[in-house]
Amino acid sequence: MLGECLEKVIQKRPLIHNITNYVTVNDVANMVLACGGSPIMADDPGEVAEITAICSGLNINIGTLNQRKVQSMLLAGKKANELKRPVVLDPVGVGASKLRTETAETLMKEIKIAVIKGNISEIKTLAAGTGTTKGVDADITDEVTEENLEKTVAFMKALSLKKNCILAVTGKIDFVTDGYKCYVIRNGRSEMEKVTGTGCQLSGLMAAYITANQENMLEAAAAAVIVMGLSGEIAWENMQPQDGNATYRNRIIDAVYNMTAEVVEKGANYELY
Amino acid sequence: MLGECLEKVIQKRPLIHNITNYVTVNDVANMVLACGGSPIMADDPGEVAEITAICSGLNINIGTLNQRKVQSMLLAGKKANELKRPVVLDPVGVGASKLRTETAETLMKEIKIAVIKGNISEIKTLAAGTGTTKGVDADITDEVTEENLEKTVAFMKALSLKKNCILAVTGKIDFVTDGYKCYVIRNGRSEMEKVTGTGCQLSGLMAAYITANQENMLEAAAAAVIVMGLSGEIAWENMQPQDGNATYRNRIIDAVYNMTAEVVEKGANYELY
Amino acid sequence: MLGECLEKVIQKRPLIHNITNYVTVNDVANMVLACGGSPIMADDPGEVAEITAICSGLNINIGTLNQRKVQSMLLAGKKANELKRPVVLDPVGVGASKLRTETAETLMKEIKIAVIKGNISEIKTLAAGTGTTKGVDADITDEVTEENLEKTVAFMKALSLKKNCILAVTGKIDFVTDGYKCYVIRNGRSEMEKVTGTGCQLSGLMAAYITANQENMLEAAAAAVIVMGLSGEIAWENMQPQDGNATYRNRIIDAVYNMTAEVVEKGANYELY
Repeated sequence: MLGECLEKVIQKRPLIHNITNYVTVNDVANMVLACGGSPIMADDPGEVAEITAICSGLNINIGTLNQRKVQSMLLAGKKANELKRPVVLDPVGVGASKLRTETAETLMKEIKIAVIKGNISEIKTLAAGTGTTKGVDADITDEVTEENLEKTVAFMKALSLKKNCILAVTGKIDFVTDGYKCYVIRNGRSEMEKVTGTGCQLSGLMAAYITANQENMLEAAAAAVIVMGLSGEIAWENMQPQDGNATYRNRIIDAVYNMTAEVVEKGANYELY
Repeated sequence: MLGECLEKVIQKRPLIHNITNYVTVNDVANMVLACGGSPIMADDPGEVAEITAICSGLNINIGTLNQRKVQSMLLAGKKANELKRPVVLDPVGVGASKLRTETAETLMKEIKIAVIKGNISEIKTLAAGTGTTKGVDADITDEVTEENLEKTVAFMKALSLKKNCILAVTGKIDFVTDGYKCYVIRNGRSEMEKVTGTGCQLSGLMAAYITANQENMLEAAAAAVIVMGLSGEIAWENMQPQDGNATYRNRIIDAVYNMTAEVVEKGANYELY
Repeated sequence: MLGECLEKVIQKRPLIHNITNYVTVNDVANMVLACGGSPIMADDPGEVAEITAICSGLNINIGTLNQRKVQSMLLAGKKANELKRPVVLDPVGVGASKLRTETAETLMKEIKIAVIKGNISEIKTLAAGTGTTKGVDADITDEVTEENLEKTVAFMKALSLKKNCILAVTGKIDFVTDGYKCYVIRNGRSEMEKVTGTGCQLSGLMAAYITANQENMLEAAAAAVIVMGLSGEIAWENMQPQDGNATYRNRIIDAVYNMTAEVVEKGANYELY
């Protein structure tokens, strides 16, 4: 089933509109291409609605924000909702500034999001922002361990229902939930943090996956997280002694490019809660 | 002769002002360096005319447009015209939005362009925009085949005369024409489409080539297209089983870096119409 | 001692706020990660002061300027000064336009800079901008040679005292001085100029180094220049015949990622004046 999600991306070659930061945008474009999708980047209020309209999915990433981009995100998001195209939100660095926190909250309020993809700290901040700060800090720490795993699953399911969207939460252990089922995923490597933008790349990949698998979005979101993590593992195996994070960046995208349904099915390391 | 075009770039090391999108800008800079040129990027109306004035050529690319950039493109283009520096226009995604289409049209009207470099769909859109929509769709399809090759050559020659500039049209088969002669080029590989920005990179390379070969611009434009395609072929030969589009991106730039006049002369695959 | 500077970056993992150009920003982020730091990019006036406040150091780079960014640089710089966080200034292309020259001068006037990192031409322009144009051109040329080395050292020391900050001046020979001592460094390779943004990458690396070594900033700045140059040497040794500037870019970052105190101590090639 995970493998089918991958194959549908390749068959359908979904065109994805990305409104993203200028730090990692090139890697996001190559990642969308690597998985079988096709990327377009456009962030001016003067064209975003038209670009969204010719695309099958929308990926919004709030790194390197400015007022012009916030306006574009709202315009594109509303157009995507109107046309029933799925929207991924990556709340990069939410909590680091009022601008980012308020933008994430406005986007969640004004736009129907299909998947929020963030690291554990970002998701915690989103949860806290809606008024449960103390509880959040007490119940769930940034470090997910085997001990607090079930608590974290319960927390993420509840948050998913509250936000009315799929959550894909990355960290040492990843969680993908629609509020009813939760994939707990143990693919990936800690060295991926040494490559800038692996999270942004995952959001682009995620947008391609859920867009090509709209009848099966939860599994597609889980497949995207697994493909990214597994690619990080395969890429690391291909590293030579003199290689570092720049080469690792390339090898991760290369591994996604070469990923097959068979490799995903065999390498996926997850449990369903 | 093609080889001489390459050598002149290395001898003259032309400084190229690039106003380009933020998606592929880093690869464009490395591509200009790879071929022997020197890149400067600047896109603020407050400095573009000055930057153009210290450069030998100008490369305008309309990806990730905004109003500030459109204004800068016009200011830089006019300065380049005034100083008789060649201008390359890459109408990325023209037709995808009114902003892009109108910007391309404004630039073509207000600025004397030396070379328009686009893929077959973009060039078709530019042609249609001038009032021949039906004819264009009837006469020329996006898929150039051996059957419609001569018709396409005739169409491109006519369009080149009408636009009063060299056209470099990329696809499975590439066309470079000044309206009188047309290079029909069969270098390159379809996998290059899996790397974001190979078109943008070609425009940077093109700007360096025509700037260093102003007495011989048609051949220089053809040489740029051939060097890019041939580099795509050589890069592919160097690929290992685990490599994908990220490594291919690097290998294409590397191949341009190592390209020699001899390799170009030997590997060029074209006919003159 | 140089090796200790490197180890402190790894121990402290300083969070660096980068306001930088969109051409080389991805490589800057990966370089900061490679050396052991952690990068954040943000350039909107609406959030820069908050971002600076959560970071330990600030890196300002004036490539691809616009008015919004200039305002952000001033806001971030003032916040960094208020919180006593070190600031690196990279005056990319100063002298190429009035906007860049005036911005560099405004930043130097309004903000206490810890290190100005520039190539020899940029530093010459900064010096000239303060009213010694003729003298500068007469006394110091862009090409530093063994013959004018001592004169250059004296010039840089004097300029450092005048600007009241450390100067890190790159070229065939590099100079790092606080006005009293001057490191004259001969690491690096000329081929590094064929990779876009090695200077910008060094500024990110520099910010991480001085931030993690505030009690010992001159040596940390010298260590950063040496680590960059040495990585350029090691990366070149790892190049294969078909490799070019794109692969060299990756290998330089990889070499920084794998750099150890021992390798720095052994490979450092400098004299103290």
